[in-house]
Amino acid sequence: MQTTLDLNADVGEGFGRWDLGDDAGLLQVVSSANVACGFHAGDPKRLLAVCELAVAGGVAIGAQISYRDLAGFGRRFIEVDPADLEAEAIYQIGALDALARRAGGRVGYVKPHGALYNAVFRHEAQASAVARAVAGFTDADGWPLPVLGQDGSALFRAAAQLGVQTVAEAFADRGYRSDGSLVPRGQAGDLLTDPDRIAARVVLAARTGSIEAVDGNQVRFPARSFCVHGDTVGAVVIARQVRAALAAAGVATSAFTALA
Amino acid sequence: MQTTLDLNADVGEGFGRWDLGDDAGLLQVVSSANVACGFHAGDPKRLLAVCELAVAGGVAIGAQISYRDLAGFGRRFIEVDPADLEAEAIYQIGALDALARRAGGRVGYVKPHGALYNAVFRHEAQASAVARAVAGFTDADGWPLPVLGQDGSALFRAAAQLGVQTVAEAFADRGYRSDGSLVPRGQAGDLLTDPDRIAARVVLAARTGSIEAVDGNQVRFPARSFCVHGDTVGAVVIARQVRAALAAAGVATSAFTALA
Amino acid sequence: MQTTLDLNADVGEGFGRWDLGDDAGLLQVVSSANVACGFHAGDPKRLLAVCELAVAGGVAIGAQISYRDLAGFGRRFIEVDPADLEAEAIYQIGALDALARRAGGRVGYVKPHGALYNAVFRHEAQASAVARAVAGFTDADGWPLPVLGQDGSALFRAAAQLGVQTVAEAFADRGYRSDGSLVPRGQAGDLLTDPDRIAARVVLAARTGSIEAVDGNQVRFPARSFCVHGDTVGAVVIARQVRAALAAAGVATSAFTALA
Amino acid sequence: MQTTLDLNADVGEGFGRWDLGDDAGLLQVVSSANVACGFHAGDPKRLLAVCELAVAGGVAIGAQISYRDLAGFGRRFIEVDPADLEAEAIYQIGALDALARRAGGRVGYVKPHGALYNAVFRHEAQASAVARAVAGFTDADGWPLPVLGQDGSALFRAAAQLGVQTVAEAFADRGYRSDGSLVPRGQAGDLLTDPDRIAARVVLAARTGSIEAVDGNQVRFPARSFCVHGDTVGAVVIARQVRAALAAAGVATSAFTALA
Repeated sequence: MQTTLDLNADVGEGFGRWDLGDDAGLLQVVSSANVACGFHAGDPKRLLAVCELAVAGGVAIGAQISYRDLAGFGRRFIEVDPADLEAEAIYQIGALDALARRAGGRVGYVKPHGALYNAVFRHEAQASAVARAVAGFTDADGWPLPVLGQDGSALFRAAAQLGVQTVAEAFADRGYRSDGSLVPRGQAGDLLTDPDRIAARVVLAARTGSIEAVDGNQVRFPARSFCVHGDTVGAVVIARQVRAALAAAGVATSAFTALA
Repeated sequence: MQTTLDLNADVGEGFGRWDLGDDAGLLQVVSSANVACGFHAGDPKRLLAVCELAVAGGVAIGAQISYRDLAGFGRRFIEVDPADLEAEAIYQIGALDALARRAGGRVGYVKPHGALYNAVFRHEAQASAVARAVAGFTDADGWPLPVLGQDGSALFRAAAQLGVQTVAEAFADRGYRSDGSLVPRGQAGDLLTDPDRIAARVVLAARTGSIEAVDGNQVRFPARSFCVHGDTVGAVVIARQVRAALAAAGVATSAFTALA
Repeated sequence: MQTTLDLNADVGEGFGRWDLGDDAGLLQVVSSANVACGFHAGDPKRLLAVCELAVAGGVAIGAQISYRDLAGFGRRFIEVDPADLEAEAIYQIGALDALARRAGGRVGYVKPHGALYNAVFRHEAQASAVARAVAGFTDADGWPLPVLGQDGSALFRAAAQLGVQTVAEAFADRGYRSDGSLVPRGQAGDLLTDPDRIAARVVLAARTGSIEAVDGNQVRFPARSFCVHGDTVGAVVIARQVRAALAAAGVATSAFTALA
Repeated sequence: MQTTLDLNADVGEGFGRWDLGDDAGLLQVVSSANVACGFHAGDPKRLLAVCELAVAGGVAIGAQISYRDLAGFGRRFIEVDPADLEAEAIYQIGALDALARRAGGRVGYVKPHGALYNAVFRHEAQASAVARAVAGFTDADGWPLPVLGQDGSALFRAAAQLGVQTVAEAFADRGYRSDGSLVPRGQAGDLLTDPDRIAARVVLAARTGSIEAVDGNQVRFPARSFCVHGDTVGAVVIARQVRAALAAAGVATSAFTALA
């Protein structure tokens, strides 16, 4: 049984005049914040403000890197040249890290966003590009950043080969199939919405290292972090419920990286 | 008489499919490279390649920060909110620094580009925002970055108040008036094009600390760096001529920052 | 006393993942919709949907042209070259018109947005560029489009010289000074929020052709259209109240252009 | 034997500060100009200038629609939602048409650019979206626009179903295989560079309706238009040579659309 679990959520996903989600609310509940880096969302002033809130609340800051696609919110696959993708990922991590440092913190991990997250599950060339970018992000501390993502992904294999630490996550509010894959959106059981049930399965996962699949089977799923979605209605309520249930079960919510 | 002088030029100012200027040629001549940061020009892959060339050639890398304006190449004044500008400047410096570090170097100074360069001569709020951004760019080394710009500018005053080092530059190929200001573009004497004459005045400036104005007067102009424009025809030829003339006069061309 | 009055509001001002305001609600109340054209807001799919709603509801479609500035929502002055601005305005009007026609309607007027709206009050070169763009937007119908804006503006003078019809508007929820200018934002009386009071003054304006200024004086203000802001909380409520009050006073709400 | 043939080339593909290719030179040789629409290249001022040159030279104007991708020059596949793609295509056609009309002409056809051109060969959903956009572009003239593209493509099938005219083109400087497909870039025979040989095969194609494949076989290829690439070195020279050879063979170069 795990005695600590990380909760992560996406924040900083507005842009200029446009807000999205309740960043301040989420940052009071989660232990890790996947902060947008400007390529799918996130103007620098907003990102700086989010980093300041994260630092004040002891929340770890992750660079949520993305395809360059404001119009599509990074949710469309782009057949981008791997050399471009690698340089774009470094650019994004560095940009956010400068804002995080300005806020008194620093970037502690990297998590791909949206369509890039999905692509690097199988797309070897893009997965390698992201892994190289993370491995090649060096600052004077020499801290290597870990990658937060999906167990079994091409990204995790490429990262491991380069000595980059990988941290597996599960989705608190998504249904899983017996083989560990997500129930595709639109199919029965794809999405959980009841805060109590979501909280209960996260607690169970922390206790047993397994998640209940839609067919009732238990799937081994040793997630070190659970993702709660930030742009759904009631996101903060769900996150609070999960955290409270974990606490009641004796599981502390804390960042997987010490760089909070 | 100065025994060393810095030559700086803009590089990395293409974008994606579009090239601009002879980056490789310039990087063989100048001692400091003002590298675009993606806001007026410069895709990350190109910027990484430019940083690699700069590091290989021992050329100092400067962050050429700009308004967010690809369509206008950063040449249009934008009445941007100072808080936005400050965060955007930090974002740009951090993004380029990550690429520079990936290339084995690092950002050694900051120079505003285009309309922002002109604006921070008088616009107190924007000048302060840029100065705060530079002062607030902290990395684990704790190196403070100097600002390259115009003597007498609001930016230099704001920077000095925050303990940011300022380095004055002159333009090798622009005409000056007796009061030290530039001859406005379009007026007689605004632009010098003869490589020999340009080289001769830079040598004279290194020797005497003065520049000959259009009316023949000598103007005190203690520039530590001379800017050669990169996007004019024959830019590399001019830069080579200037460097050769300086060498012949016993003046070494070397970066003003030790962070090459 | 006017027997009809136009109510206009901004719509289509989300972008991709980001929504803004209650477009569907507003389109049930106003008679003219200032539809974003993609330069400060408005992705094409959203704009097409808005045009379809407008056509279905008999609401006139106006092209809300802007500076090219998604990051700043078109609210920052940009010193754009007039020749660029003219071509950009034509581009935006044509783009929206194609979507409006696809929806079964067409663009019936042009209204500058945000910082451009403010700039063309005094900035002669930009005002002329916008007027030339409107005058130069020709389609096979040969319909000339009118401009909706501020009485006494440089835009109206430039438009009149080119034979472009001008339609004056007032702001339903902004305070005016005795000279007819707006109370600057941040000063006492800048903004009205009480739906009843807002409705009452619009009715009074329709009756008398005058608006009560903050100092109690009546200002002659022969507005043919009143603007209700779409992105304020309760915008739809205010708009409904105004329309109901006008109806009760015998004033019909109808578009100033017949091209609904 | 054909007595007329169309030559088409891409123009207007610079952006702001960045130029690309010799637009003025090409517009003196080709009969149809595929003008960028701002999504992969082409700022409005440049597009207006190109349209003015096209109108002055009697060159037909085509809307070269693209994915929204300035950074990638429209050369990366994007898994864009078909409803977005349809609206974006309408937006682009309308924007360019307004500029073309301002220049005294109008858009006479539509040609997809880059990765979109390749995608609509097989991608049924995106092909249908483009076909719907073209079919749905209505102006007061009621002119239906034809589509210029590849014979046998999903786009041509979708267009035909909607009553949209399709015009097949071949590439003057690309090698073909016996099945009519292009020799993939990077393989032997992918690209022809000798102006004389390029000219000879276009003449032969006009005479026989066939193209010689890399293996020496003749492939039936009833192209009504030949594309000459605008961004290769010597593009104008090649285009001139082709046109001269056609003239010598008694084949006039003229637009396939009467809407020049």
